[in-house]
Amino acid sequence: MATKNPELPVETPLNRRNFLKGSAALAGGVAAKAVPTMALAGNPENLPPNVPSWSQGLGDGVDITPYGMPSEFEQKVVRRTVPWLTATPESSVSFTPLADVYGIITPNGLHFCRHHGGVAGINSHDHRLVIHGLVDRELIFTMHEVKRMPSVSRIHFLECAANGGMEWRGAQLEAVQFTHGMISCCEWTGVKLSTLLDECGIKPKAKWLLAEGADASGMTRSIPMDKALDDCMVVYAQNGEMLRPEQGYPLRLFVPGWEGNMSIKWLRRIEVGDQPWHTREETSKYTDLMPTGKARQFTWFQECNSVITSPSMEKPINGKGFVEIQGLSWTGQGKIKQVDVSVDGGKNWHPAQIDGPVFDKALTRFRLPWKWDGKAALLQSRAIDETGYVQPNFSELRALRGEWSIYHNNSVHTWKVNTGGDVENVQLS
Amino acid sequence: MATKNPELPVETPLNRRNFLKGSAALAGGVAAKAVPTMALAGNPENLPPNVPSWSQGLGDGVDITPYGMPSEFEQKVVRRTVPWLTATPESSVSFTPLADVYGIITPNGLHFCRHHGGVAGINSHDHRLVIHGLVDRELIFTMHEVKRMPSVSRIHFLECAANGGMEWRGAQLEAVQFTHGMISCCEWTGVKLSTLLDECGIKPKAKWLLAEGADASGMTRSIPMDKALDDCMVVYAQNGEMLRPEQGYPLRLFVPGWEGNMSIKWLRRIEVGDQPWHTREETSKYTDLMPTGKARQFTWFQECNSVITSPSMEKPINGKGFVEIQGLSWTGQGKIKQVDVSVDGGKNWHPAQIDGPVFDKALTRFRLPWKWDGKAALLQSRAIDETGYVQPNFSELRALRGEWSIYHNNSVHTWKVNTGGDVENVQLS
Repeated sequence: MATKNPELPVETPLNRRNFLKGSAALAGGVAAKAVPTMALAGNPENLPPNVPSWSQGLGDGVDITPYGMPSEFEQKVVRRTVPWLTATPESSVSFTPLADVYGIITPNGLHFCRHHGGVAGINSHDHRLVIHGLVDRELIFTMHEVKRMPSVSRIHFLECAANGGMEWRGAQLEAVQFTHGMISCCEWTGVKLSTLLDECGIKPKAKWLLAEGADASGMTRSIPMDKALDDCMVVYAQNGEMLRPEQGYPLRLFVPGWEGNMSIKWLRRIEVGDQPWHTREETSKYTDLMPTGKARQFTWFQECNSVITSPSMEKPINGKGFVEIQGLSWTGQGKIKQVDVSVDGGKNWHPAQIDGPVFDKALTRFRLPWKWDGKAALLQSRAIDETGYVQPNFSELRALRGEWSIYHNNSVHTWKVNTGGDVENVQLS
Repeated sequence: MATKNPELPVETPLNRRNFLKGSAALAGGVAAKAVPTMALAGNPENLPPNVPSWSQGLGDGVDITPYGMPSEFEQKVVRRTVPWLTATPESSVSFTPLADVYGIITPNGLHFCRHHGGVAGINSHDHRLVIHGLVDRELIFTMHEVKRMPSVSRIHFLECAANGGMEWRGAQLEAVQFTHGMISCCEWTGVKLSTLLDECGIKPKAKWLLAEGADASGMTRSIPMDKALDDCMVVYAQNGEMLRPEQGYPLRLFVPGWEGNMSIKWLRRIEVGDQPWHTREETSKYTDLMPTGKARQFTWFQECNSVITSPSMEKPINGKGFVEIQGLSWTGQGKIKQVDVSVDGGKNWHPAQIDGPVFDKALTRFRLPWKWDGKAALLQSRAIDETGYVQPNFSELRALRGEWSIYHNNSVHTWKVNTGGDVENVQLS
């Protein structure tokens, strides 16, 4: 719970008995006595004291939906693409609608996608994982064999290294879905990579792995052995069910906290070696061009980051009064320790509430009660992780890394609330 | 981690380097050298060293699936119904396929359903929640107003009081989906019920609530005020997205740890009073007929329970060797403290591993490594919660409650593994 600061329009701790009464907008909608509220234009026949149409007849039975889907009234909550971003949709991105997700679990249907050769349509019965190279026994596993092994389940985020990439030079996209939507968080289930490697027996000079996907791009990345033996998994399930095709069905590598592209989807081959492979995806791509003209390579972990998802461009404020500022934070280096929120462009910071579970390398939701006075405001969030690392602002990041990067943009973003309640993506230094 | 017991065929701690080599079945499938394994009949063209068909051309682009769905090869993993169980599908149940879910999060598409008048097809724009009765201010809330209030997210199970009901007299259904599949677990997001009640102002003599659904059955239950103010929520989201229609879209009450039917779906009305209402659903239904002919009423919380989901009737053992016994445990009284597993019908018990997060009133997955010798075995699990309560066996429960109950069957179940590896639901005393 944030501490009260009388100089700022932040009311904390929340005065429950008065927060709605104190809000002009909500007071208009919350009428005394049980009479219909017309704050939103509804269908009068369905409003109290009338009995709504859906209460007047039987609805669908349990036999209608063996596998359930969202309400028809939520059809706008979908992953979206940016057609101009890449040459073809088979090598592109679809973004999670962060302003319309709740809690820390991303539903499987809305998990962001990044493909390099489209979605491989694999029959799990025919899929095989080969492990070879500097091992005592080169082995081929069926899915049945992988699933028979000792299993683990872990809640972790997955983030594309290019998340926020379009903002490096200040694109200022007008949707949090596009500024930050290349991140999602699921409960992943599979086998520890160390269990599989133990079964093959790693030779003493083995220091690296090559992981290869069965998609048309033959996506490949080198993984250092220390990480492989630490917390990497070979996963077959997400959020309680088998992986979705676009997430690597039936098997993907999962490299917690590191660039999403290293969590190779449709995993078909692991080669054990003594040095990195310097594949296309770690030379021409997924490196960071510095002002000197040299490139940073093997920038593996996703830095501590955060974003306010409401209010946001998709979630304008509908009138003065109580507003819960909400957002998501994460770090590839462990757990989130604290998130600070500013409503004045970083002049003053207030510690946000973190009341959900805080997992290692997982999305962590923060909340801050705020009373909006109808004036323009500059909202920012700044996350701090358990290593003590503080999320940088835009100018700090550019001073360090220049303007040529695409990847690893974890700078503080600013949402400007205008007097009408609408929100803009603006660039502060 | 369980302790090693040399008298039993349980190998713990797991000897990683040898568990697969020691397994005849898996040794057959895991071939030395990178040559195809034919343990499962696959399509040879797709097996190594051949390059599989799905690697030879572009797959679907990111624009194909704005909202993702499971693989076509997982179409058998669905909720199932029991047509003879009720007169109509509008007042019936569909069961979560517990043997095919992973971790502790149940995907929204597979959350069990129990309706009393079918699924109300509600437009969230027109939905209203009325709070009236012994309050200072009778109020009507739009969904916009509810969603603007301070929010919380919690991971909790939801279980029908009748889960296991068909087993009271020993039906011995041949699928864990039907014996225990009226339970699921999600991250629920909404507003604390206490926040809403504070806004209305509860009068001093208010001791009970009536919650009413907007479905055709007008589902109603009485909730004691202590529970309402403790951990109840009015939720609009599950697992990161808006509630599914069959889970009460756009708003449901959520009463953690208590009978699922009290978590009123399509919540339209809360009346505050000084005594319970004794509705149909707490008199003729959801009471427990005792041997004396009297009925237990208001048997609210779901007792500590557990079930082995693999091996199970749906998950036979495919050959001797290493097997991970897995299952789910839960209690409506707090957290799971321990789960014991027996492979000899309860003569000897071994503490299972609980390596996932253990949440209050949430599914908790347990695992026990086991080496199956090919002989018949009797698998049981027995959960213990943080109050010290131990899940009873069938005869203990019947001695206490007789044979006439439908609800609150939390007895230890027994899966018999036959020599062929197939599994039966058998009744031990």
